[in-house]
Amino acid sequence: MIRVGVVGGTGYTGVELLRLLLRHPGVTVSFITSRGEAERRLDNLFPSLLGACDLAFTDPAEADYSDCDLVFFATPHNVAMRNVPALIEQGIQVVDLSADFRLRDVGVWERWYGETHAAPELCAEAVYGLPEVNRDAIRTARLVACPGCYPTAVQLGFLPLLEAGLVHPNQLVASCGSGLSGAGRQAKLDSLLTEAGESIAAYGVAGHRHLPEMEQGLGTMADQPVQLTFVPHLLPMSRGIHATLFAKINADSADLQSLYEKRYAGEPFVSVLASGEHPATRDVRGANVCQLSVAQPQGRDTVVVMSVIDNLVKGAAGQAVQCMNILMGYRETAGLEGIALAP
Amino acid sequence: MIRVGVVGGTGYTGVELLRLLLRHPGVTVSFITSRGEAERRLDNLFPSLLGACDLAFTDPAEADYSDCDLVFFATPHNVAMRNVPALIEQGIQVVDLSADFRLRDVGVWERWYGETHAAPELCAEAVYGLPEVNRDAIRTARLVACPGCYPTAVQLGFLPLLEAGLVHPNQLVASCGSGLSGAGRQAKLDSLLTEAGESIAAYGVAGHRHLPEMEQGLGTMADQPVQLTFVPHLLPMSRGIHATLFAKINADSADLQSLYEKRYAGEPFVSVLASGEHPATRDVRGANVCQLSVAQPQGRDTVVVMSVIDNLVKGAAGQAVQCMNILMGYRETAGLEGIALAP
Amino acid sequence: MIRVGVVGGTGYTGVELLRLLLRHPGVTVSFITSRGEAERRLDNLFPSLLGACDLAFTDPAEADYSDCDLVFFATPHNVAMRNVPALIEQGIQVVDLSADFRLRDVGVWERWYGETHAAPELCAEAVYGLPEVNRDAIRTARLVACPGCYPTAVQLGFLPLLEAGLVHPNQLVASCGSGLSGAGRQAKLDSLLTEAGESIAAYGVAGHRHLPEMEQGLGTMADQPVQLTFVPHLLPMSRGIHATLFAKINADSADLQSLYEKRYAGEPFVSVLASGEHPATRDVRGANVCQLSVAQPQGRDTVVVMSVIDNLVKGAAGQAVQCMNILMGYRETAGLEGIALAP
Amino acid sequence: MIRVGVVGGTGYTGVELLRLLLRHPGVTVSFITSRGEAERRLDNLFPSLLGACDLAFTDPAEADYSDCDLVFFATPHNVAMRNVPALIEQGIQVVDLSADFRLRDVGVWERWYGETHAAPELCAEAVYGLPEVNRDAIRTARLVACPGCYPTAVQLGFLPLLEAGLVHPNQLVASCGSGLSGAGRQAKLDSLLTEAGESIAAYGVAGHRHLPEMEQGLGTMADQPVQLTFVPHLLPMSRGIHATLFAKINADSADLQSLYEKRYAGEPFVSVLASGEHPATRDVRGANVCQLSVAQPQGRDTVVVMSVIDNLVKGAAGQAVQCMNILMGYRETAGLEGIALAP
Repeated sequence: MIRVGVVGGTGYTGVELLRLLLRHPGVTVSFITSRGEAERRLDNLFPSLLGACDLAFTDPAEADYSDCDLVFFATPHNVAMRNVPALIEQGIQVVDLSADFRLRDVGVWERWYGETHAAPELCAEAVYGLPEVNRDAIRTARLVACPGCYPTAVQLGFLPLLEAGLVHPNQLVASCGSGLSGAGRQAKLDSLLTEAGESIAAYGVAGHRHLPEMEQGLGTMADQPVQLTFVPHLLPMSRGIHATLFAKINADSADLQSLYEKRYAGEPFVSVLASGEHPATRDVRGANVCQLSVAQPQGRDTVVVMSVIDNLVKGAAGQAVQCMNILMGYRETAGLEGIALAP
Repeated sequence: MIRVGVVGGTGYTGVELLRLLLRHPGVTVSFITSRGEAERRLDNLFPSLLGACDLAFTDPAEADYSDCDLVFFATPHNVAMRNVPALIEQGIQVVDLSADFRLRDVGVWERWYGETHAAPELCAEAVYGLPEVNRDAIRTARLVACPGCYPTAVQLGFLPLLEAGLVHPNQLVASCGSGLSGAGRQAKLDSLLTEAGESIAAYGVAGHRHLPEMEQGLGTMADQPVQLTFVPHLLPMSRGIHATLFAKINADSADLQSLYEKRYAGEPFVSVLASGEHPATRDVRGANVCQLSVAQPQGRDTVVVMSVIDNLVKGAAGQAVQCMNILMGYRETAGLEGIALAP
Repeated sequence: MIRVGVVGGTGYTGVELLRLLLRHPGVTVSFITSRGEAERRLDNLFPSLLGACDLAFTDPAEADYSDCDLVFFATPHNVAMRNVPALIEQGIQVVDLSADFRLRDVGVWERWYGETHAAPELCAEAVYGLPEVNRDAIRTARLVACPGCYPTAVQLGFLPLLEAGLVHPNQLVASCGSGLSGAGRQAKLDSLLTEAGESIAAYGVAGHRHLPEMEQGLGTMADQPVQLTFVPHLLPMSRGIHATLFAKINADSADLQSLYEKRYAGEPFVSVLASGEHPATRDVRGANVCQLSVAQPQGRDTVVVMSVIDNLVKGAAGQAVQCMNILMGYRETAGLEGIALAP
Repeated sequence: MIRVGVVGGTGYTGVELLRLLLRHPGVTVSFITSRGEAERRLDNLFPSLLGACDLAFTDPAEADYSDCDLVFFATPHNVAMRNVPALIEQGIQVVDLSADFRLRDVGVWERWYGETHAAPELCAEAVYGLPEVNRDAIRTARLVACPGCYPTAVQLGFLPLLEAGLVHPNQLVASCGSGLSGAGRQAKLDSLLTEAGESIAAYGVAGHRHLPEMEQGLGTMADQPVQLTFVPHLLPMSRGIHATLFAKINADSADLQSLYEKRYAGEPFVSVLASGEHPATRDVRGANVCQLSVAQPQGRDTVVVMSVIDNLVKGAAGQAVQCMNILMGYRETAGLEGIALAP
């Protein structure tokens, strides 16, 4: 049984992390911080926790980190990088769900986030927390940087193709959609039900901060630089990410179905659908699962991959718990066996 | 570890029961039947079960009931009553989620369902599976008849008032709404997203089969006949029931908040919200929970109670598992600790 | 052709009013004001107006009211009452969509709104803009106070019963639901798709500002004071109000269907459904229509009325245009012939 | 004033056509047919038409076509082709909303639809009803074949690029999503709110019947064969199509914004958004409008175009009325001035 702290508990990622940690057989939650809601009971802010949680929010300044074996950051970017170095120095492991340590290249990070990085020395050390790619490195990490939600769906989708060198790396396209919970628990006009409901629109076409993260990861898989065109859309629903991926195949013939099935054969949280089926986000709602399918329409040279996750689970909190399990030597599926809520 | 069978596995109640049973620490699922889908893998029909279930549907004629300690019926009405007597004779316990054994008065049942009851002798014996009222009787039952979804929300809402004799029993009003999963997994025009989405309408105002069930239960609580006006509505969402209840108080002053808190103090699955709060169905989504609040607007003599459940969980599959836990002497919360999925 | 101004154009009521006025055969829109968005083109804020409107918002301080025959206020309460007196003095007619002049009793207004009324002398003069009740008075009004959205649905629902004296006036119940657009175009946590979507909850049970407005109107119909228990709910959809009304009948027998059909026979915007049917909000989406049905379940003494409107049309902007048509001597349906958008 | 008949009136396209035709200043609807609903009043099947339509459905065998100047077919494919020849022979013009005459190459049609074409001689004559491309030809047509919904959004999106020869014609990608009304008013499991709500999934990736229609149209614009990869998705909403288009630019520099604005400058129903904006389907809901934007992310060589329409209006019934207006010499916008219903 380990003790964990959660920094940043009032967002959707925070409450989702709580949902998983409160039922995890090997974890005790020591504290969960919030500046604005300090001393308020969690089940008052989140009535879904009624009966499941007696904690109140702790002011971050008063949190007793030394009581923890591991600390999660479920904060906006720019918080973890200012607090992680001290924790690591004390020997506390960190799983960061924010964007602060996802990019190895500090310069790229600073360009996309428009500020100076507060802990550049840790950027190279941080292990990118995509277990299907980095399981071994995660095992011994001091700091895990969990992938973003889009990057999880997109990288798991392209992974077999790029590792096998089967597609042109400079003509990748990802047309993705996310439920509104990806926009966070913030009072914004664009996220109102009246604005976002019964409608779809793209956003951030000129440039989204997940792009450099994806190109970094895809480039590592391909062992060469890649170019990705990434268009995210806001979908009229709460949870779920759907990635539709396009790539130009460079081989005469390839059994893509078998390629995908083999690559993910041992993975507890990735399912490859039968040929001809299409994954739906409803089938992964609330579960730490990625479902994939691959097709080559009309037998032409464009491969299409469809990949779905729950943005708050495999795209955030669930993946963070999965990384924690690996770090702690727990069974990788511990606390993550929940079956998707469909319908 | 007991072995259970599920009769009727292709509806939403069936797959929800599977979601809970597959993760229950004291249960092995022996079979799940379907006439139309026999031999098809469950995870092919329900991709949400991918990786969680290797079963295929069994033709009901070929199911080996003798292998089971307990059998659930997740069928439309009119199936259980023809099959339960033989099971009970073999000493197999039955938890019926359908309407066949909910009414003690066979004549009332036959009038509302328009057919002859096939097992009238069991109607009086069957224990109505609302643990908050009938826990002791459930413990020793051979046959548990689980309440309908509306009846669960409505009865838990009125219970403290009626038991305390605080309201006029012949002027009860229940204005309720249900998500579409309550209409079942059937291809019906009215249940299309294009028809039911972004809209609300009442239905069955002239008479809904849950009315006699509710009047029977409420009458027992009040220890006298009651009259309920019940108006159900179809809500543009998938899961959840909201009951708004109105009753005329017959006492000069009553601390209703305290009445409700005391009545439900020991109940693991009922939460009374603080005075002035309003329960929301999102906070019980996927959880075996009823959240309630009570108010007396303007200090007038009409009491308003709000009660929410997930129709597929506390309104069906979760309540059935709760009854099974009681029957089997398991911890009542076993397999039901999952926290609601919000947002 | 008259010239009209619109004060307050950035809310949902404002843009809906524009949608109707821009296509009205007898109206030219002179200006539409906004403090925060002055000089911004309307179709930039509301791309639904692209190609239909070349106007930019005018700062209210710079609006030329003298250019108008009639001014609409589509503002929050507390704006119209400070500006209307001067307009009326100049002979400009006013149709106020806000709550400022809906209550005849200034004391009641001040109690519910918690502030001093700035134009108490106009409260008694203002004509309550429910044409089905006040058509003649509207014709000659200087100031029309348009009803709120819930009050429109509730009053049209109870009207025939109360006028006929068929129900007990002190035991009225209204269980209502509204789409999120009723909460306005404001960045509020509770109105996020992630909070309000796929969920239902009551609100304001302790007291909602539409209650005194409804009791005033219903009392006038009944010709005696009434008591109404009013519970509003937030529904997971954008537009639409559904009112489910309960009243205790005091007559032995009454042909309610015929009562309703006769009362609304000549009304262009009220439709009484056939007996046994239930109105759905989808069927009035975007249309200036109220659809109603009435039932007496089980032949007992509780009458149930169902009433639906689009909160932004018959519950706000459409009703305001209807009042304008009456004021101006236009055909009452001018500019309001649009058919509901279903699905 | 012309008289028109509508064949096939019980689907969403049919009722949408009625919504527009009943308010069209130059049209009288003579009849609307339905085999299954003959003699039933339209407003009984579609309560949204209450007060707007006194018609009942006519059995197609009893419809008096000779009374019509023009007949619309709002039927599934395979109906129009068997009935149109006789109408044309009688000098009645036809606007076909189905797929029967969209493909000029009968062989291609027969391959994709798996049956023999009943009127192959008309396939070459039929004018493809996309006014932005074929306005002049429509003017003198006897038979107009209205484009499908996806093809309208996709072709209007690619049109300026292909006409200008700016992109590689064999690497076109269209990732599109449609609201559920595109799946028709049919009781299908996949279209239930419980299945399609709160979820997104692709479908028909192996091959969708709109693909040959799009490649035919795009090839004409490019004046050479094109290859398109088309992935449609089902979106959790009722109305709206969003097309996200990708193409590889073959020019060093191009002012794409200006290209689009110029191409669509005179078009009454196409709006090009300002650079950096993203069209949303909510802004065209119920309106005969296509909104577009174009971008070149990161200045790389992939162009991204976003195009939105309402699938039932500009993607079906509205476009059909637009074609009728052109055919009849009416003002092209007659009856189509309705502003989008947002929110």
